[in-house]
Amino acid sequence: MRITQLFTKTSKTVPADEAAKNAQLLIQAGYVYKVMAGVYAYTPLGLRVLENIKSIVREEMNAVNGQEIIMSSLQRKETWEGTGRWDDEVVDVWFKSKLKDDTEVGFGWSHEEAILEMMQQFIKSYKDLPTSVYQFQTKLRNELRAKSGIMRGREFVMKDMYSLHATQEDMDQYYDKVIEAYKRAYERLGLGDSTFVTFASGGAFTKFSHEFQTICDAGEDILYVNDDRTVAVNEEVLDDAANELGIDKNDLQAVKSAEVGNIFKFGTEKAEKMGVYYTDSDGTQKPIYLASYGIGITRVMGVIVEKFADEKGIVWPESVAPYRVYLVRIGGEEATKRADDLYAELASKGVDVLYDDRDERPGTKFADSELMGIPHRVTVSDRLNESQKYEYTVRNTGETVELTQHELLVKLVTE
Amino acid sequence: MRITQLFTKTSKTVPADEAAKNAQLLIQAGYVYKVMAGVYAYTPLGLRVLENIKSIVREEMNAVNGQEIIMSSLQRKETWEGTGRWDDEVVDVWFKSKLKDDTEVGFGWSHEEAILEMMQQFIKSYKDLPTSVYQFQTKLRNELRAKSGIMRGREFVMKDMYSLHATQEDMDQYYDKVIEAYKRAYERLGLGDSTFVTFASGGAFTKFSHEFQTICDAGEDILYVNDDRTVAVNEEVLDDAANELGIDKNDLQAVKSAEVGNIFKFGTEKAEKMGVYYTDSDGTQKPIYLASYGIGITRVMGVIVEKFADEKGIVWPESVAPYRVYLVRIGGEEATKRADDLYAELASKGVDVLYDDRDERPGTKFADSELMGIPHRVTVSDRLNESQKYEYTVRNTGETVELTQHELLVKLVTE
Repeated sequence: MRITQLFTKTSKTVPADEAAKNAQLLIQAGYVYKVMAGVYAYTPLGLRVLENIKSIVREEMNAVNGQEIIMSSLQRKETWEGTGRWDDEVVDVWFKSKLKDDTEVGFGWSHEEAILEMMQQFIKSYKDLPTSVYQFQTKLRNELRAKSGIMRGREFVMKDMYSLHATQEDMDQYYDKVIEAYKRAYERLGLGDSTFVTFASGGAFTKFSHEFQTICDAGEDILYVNDDRTVAVNEEVLDDAANELGIDKNDLQAVKSAEVGNIFKFGTEKAEKMGVYYTDSDGTQKPIYLASYGIGITRVMGVIVEKFADEKGIVWPESVAPYRVYLVRIGGEEATKRADDLYAELASKGVDVLYDDRDERPGTKFADSELMGIPHRVTVSDRLNESQKYEYTVRNTGETVELTQHELLVKLVTE
Repeated sequence: MRITQLFTKTSKTVPADEAAKNAQLLIQAGYVYKVMAGVYAYTPLGLRVLENIKSIVREEMNAVNGQEIIMSSLQRKETWEGTGRWDDEVVDVWFKSKLKDDTEVGFGWSHEEAILEMMQQFIKSYKDLPTSVYQFQTKLRNELRAKSGIMRGREFVMKDMYSLHATQEDMDQYYDKVIEAYKRAYERLGLGDSTFVTFASGGAFTKFSHEFQTICDAGEDILYVNDDRTVAVNEEVLDDAANELGIDKNDLQAVKSAEVGNIFKFGTEKAEKMGVYYTDSDGTQKPIYLASYGIGITRVMGVIVEKFADEKGIVWPESVAPYRVYLVRIGGEEATKRADDLYAELASKGVDVLYDDRDERPGTKFADSELMGIPHRVTVSDRLNESQKYEYTVRNTGETVELTQHELLVKLVTE
């Protein structure tokens, strides 16, 4: 993509109405546009990051036989009454409206009840179990405050997966498989080293649920971790979990963290409340076991920004960066021709390049490449016309070297 | 995909609460699930069709330099007040709700005003023009009635593109380019022969807009076409258009049709009402020219079902079918091994196969393959174990031949 073709622009002004670093940087770099507090549109750059995150999560969900679907935003009152969760006293984030005939409708803030109601139509027998479905859905939540940028929005994208089972053993086994899939996903998203499977509060069926918490100063949670970081516990269940694990809570260290995923065993609780049964091999009717698995896609994007950004701007991990290379052109006709040629060469080799073909000062181009956080920068300048070399800079280290075209291609195409 | 792994099931029962053929067939074949009137969830099969349609449209929008973004569903009142379209008397399909502090919010039924408001932040000078952005957005419309299945929903997916220009000439030229892009898209979607660029009612800026209308018995519109089908006019502007074109309206023939796209020149109307100006090369402030271009993605899916379905079920064009091949296994161990091998062989060659590995009667498998509308059916049966041949059937003609593996692969991989 040539930057002259991109409609977004970077801005040096920190948005006055944004307290969160992620929103400030994403707006300044042209990744998102603020519609209202907690509601953002995603520009071509932002959408590319989101799609990269979704692709990684999709691959890992497919690897545990998740089947992708897409549910609706509009929700029927009756779907949520069985579990008592239509009530605004129980769920205080509903957006609701009415059809022309005065029928109340809600806008999906979660889809557990909706999924179970749908699956009831397809799951009749033990032979139909287990099964697992997931979606990337835009969730709407009427949050009282929305000050964390894209980390907690009134409108956000979530991957939510739901698995249905005939027995607790089967659910437990699958749940453990999903924990491994989640670990792989966060690893690939660049968050592996700082993300922990964490004990969190459970519900009617299990004492604990599990969160995936990423150590992050901008996080809203406090995590207690042990020295070798094999145990992590959310503050809300510290005493209970310490007891359960037989450890002294005073041996744990408190760190700020952001929840990037949450998985939960409902057991047969929802199915019993909603009347969702299957016929077992002996002909008896039994309630379906349900577990749910969420990853906040837009939230992960925000956490990545918060964690890796430096004083110059965003630093994307390779796997989610909107472009792999930021190509800077400096100088006259010859440098322009060399930059055009390199752009074409990299495109032909499948390397995604953002080509800064603007007539701007070098400093402006460098600053924008840093603000945008593209992992690799290549500068084609008159200074290196004679040697036919390229200046190559790594975003996260700032390390700069001069490379021949061959050396550059080896680095960008095969590494 | 093995059918035993797919959670959906086909049904022989026509849904009693659906009048539209598209909804009946899509529900029976397991492509969609009805949440409420006009609101559908898309199963793995349905989502694959939607994504295929989106891919074709995306490629054509990218080909005219459209930049993909994603706006929000939540809308601010202020965004729509400038043009008067917040008013429920003017726009009667708004879903609205309130934030916790009583601020009114709407849910996007269209995004013209929202896009223009956003672009105002990025477009300052004539040098920033022209530009074109598009999204695939879930639109919410509070329709009084919703009886046309996925052809007119309360929640549906639309591709909406918006182009911004400095001059009318530039807008006119781009508009004509988009007409050609749309023609290519409908051609690739299998609707080329029956889809017409149609004169429809205009607005403050132009006498006519253009619709893309597909001849279809389930359509809600009446189209007037001439004998050689070079002219098509929507009933609503028949007199005006006949005058304009210098033709006798009695020479036109009336056919039922469904709108599958609509393109519209706003000119400077919206920008003037919303105060969106650019600085021209002479330093003066001028209003931006705007045109918009919609394709109803879910609607196109419904129209395709309506148009091509026969008494046995859905008939997907190759380009949008969820799978290219429906593989039927009939018989014992040897046929099973042959079918497993063929499934692996086709997968390795990148052919999408839905493998009916169920222990069902042949008649049930054949009926499901026809109901689901997969273009190519391959049957592996004991009867052909000795000859090592495969029975190959084309969905839309019913033509059946026996082929060797080599002949089969030539047909499925390269054609």
